[in-house]
Amino acid sequence: MCTDMSKKAVVLLSGGLDSATSAAAAADKGFELSALTFDYGQRHSVEILAAKKIAAFLGIRNHIIINIPSEIFKTALVGGSQAQIPKNRVITPDEIPDTYVPARNIIFLSYALAYAESIGAETIFIGANALDYSGYPDCRPEFFEAFAAMAAKGTKAGIEGHPPRIETPLISMTKAAIISLGSALGLDYSLTHSCYDPDESGAACGTCDSCMLRKKGFAEAMIPDPTRYIKE
Amino acid sequence: MCTDMSKKAVVLLSGGLDSATSAAAAADKGFELSALTFDYGQRHSVEILAAKKIAAFLGIRNHIIINIPSEIFKTALVGGSQAQIPKNRVITPDEIPDTYVPARNIIFLSYALAYAESIGAETIFIGANALDYSGYPDCRPEFFEAFAAMAAKGTKAGIEGHPPRIETPLISMTKAAIISLGSALGLDYSLTHSCYDPDESGAACGTCDSCMLRKKGFAEAMIPDPTRYIKE
Repeated sequence: MCTDMSKKAVVLLSGGLDSATSAAAAADKGFELSALTFDYGQRHSVEILAAKKIAAFLGIRNHIIINIPSEIFKTALVGGSQAQIPKNRVITPDEIPDTYVPARNIIFLSYALAYAESIGAETIFIGANALDYSGYPDCRPEFFEAFAAMAAKGTKAGIEGHPPRIETPLISMTKAAIISLGSALGLDYSLTHSCYDPDESGAACGTCDSCMLRKKGFAEAMIPDPTRYIKE
Repeated sequence: MCTDMSKKAVVLLSGGLDSATSAAAAADKGFELSALTFDYGQRHSVEILAAKKIAAFLGIRNHIIINIPSEIFKTALVGGSQAQIPKNRVITPDEIPDTYVPARNIIFLSYALAYAESIGAETIFIGANALDYSGYPDCRPEFFEAFAAMAAKGTKAGIEGHPPRIETPLISMTKAAIISLGSALGLDYSLTHSCYDPDESGAACGTCDSCMLRKKGFAEAMIPDPTRYIKE
């Protein structure tokens, strides 16, 4: 119908390693990218700065930062919360940890859906990963399938038979494979930030589950980890 | 498990007639209400003020106004848009009009879901209506069913078997029936606002499809319409 539409994509960019790789993969496929980043009072607001650097690195000119009132979420990740960031252990597959943020990806994808429909983008990229991940319900393939089914019912584009497609290029990749992919695409991982509990300078704690997964990924990919850690 | 939880509900409050009635119905059922209202640069921002008045009228102390960047939506409803508000005609059932806002209810419900899970509310009330409505895909029962299925997959509460329930008490009611219900519950409809294109004083245009549905509703309910119209 309209060939221009097929070249636009909306990417969700958190500033982390996964979403940066997802965006790099989208760019590599020739999409013209628009990026959405969310500021929800997360402890790791250094991520927002990282997202801006990654967008600039990937040549994304259309980058919107969206504020979500932090009171919407009750989670260990939001500053001021009483809950503790788990340290020195990787979350087990059947566990939903305190760092779970209620319906976070649901809100993020809803914005991406609205914006994709508004600008005529036919694809949404999200760097979710169901393998080396933190046990979140909204990172699993069955969630993305249910979201796509809902989008098909709840949007004009969906009713017309062409709802924005949700791509999860990293969904079944290990962290090492993700890092290998991004490195092959020329992504500069020193721009990305993974830590749930950085110090004031932005250095990573090295002990939260997100840091541990990141360290393990670089080690397994046999690629030097450019992250600045507080504790090595 | 926890009886306190069963008494909390999150209501989506736009400032319009339907959401006010939905909230009044929720209050009548004994729920302790928290309200969410969205400011997305809509032409009818007088709605936000109306939402505050309605929340106060219903005794809702926990009312959060959430800003959505207006650039997310491309619609005739957002100030500065080039599209025209349809006038002097009611939208036909098979038509999706220019006033459609991409994925609006999807974003609104996503926030309600996150907030409900955060505060332990088991029910969400939305005043959507599939009978006397404006042809929007995200106002139909099949959309709400798909959203509930997605919420069951994408939230911790859902995985645990108790996702927040989405109630659409007005879904199959005529506008006249909605007005009759709200009036019976003691709701003051002079606090509500329906017009897509009010003047600077907040007076309703009387000719957009939202005004026409409202007028028709009061007439059919045989209840005096307290709305201040520019043109009678």
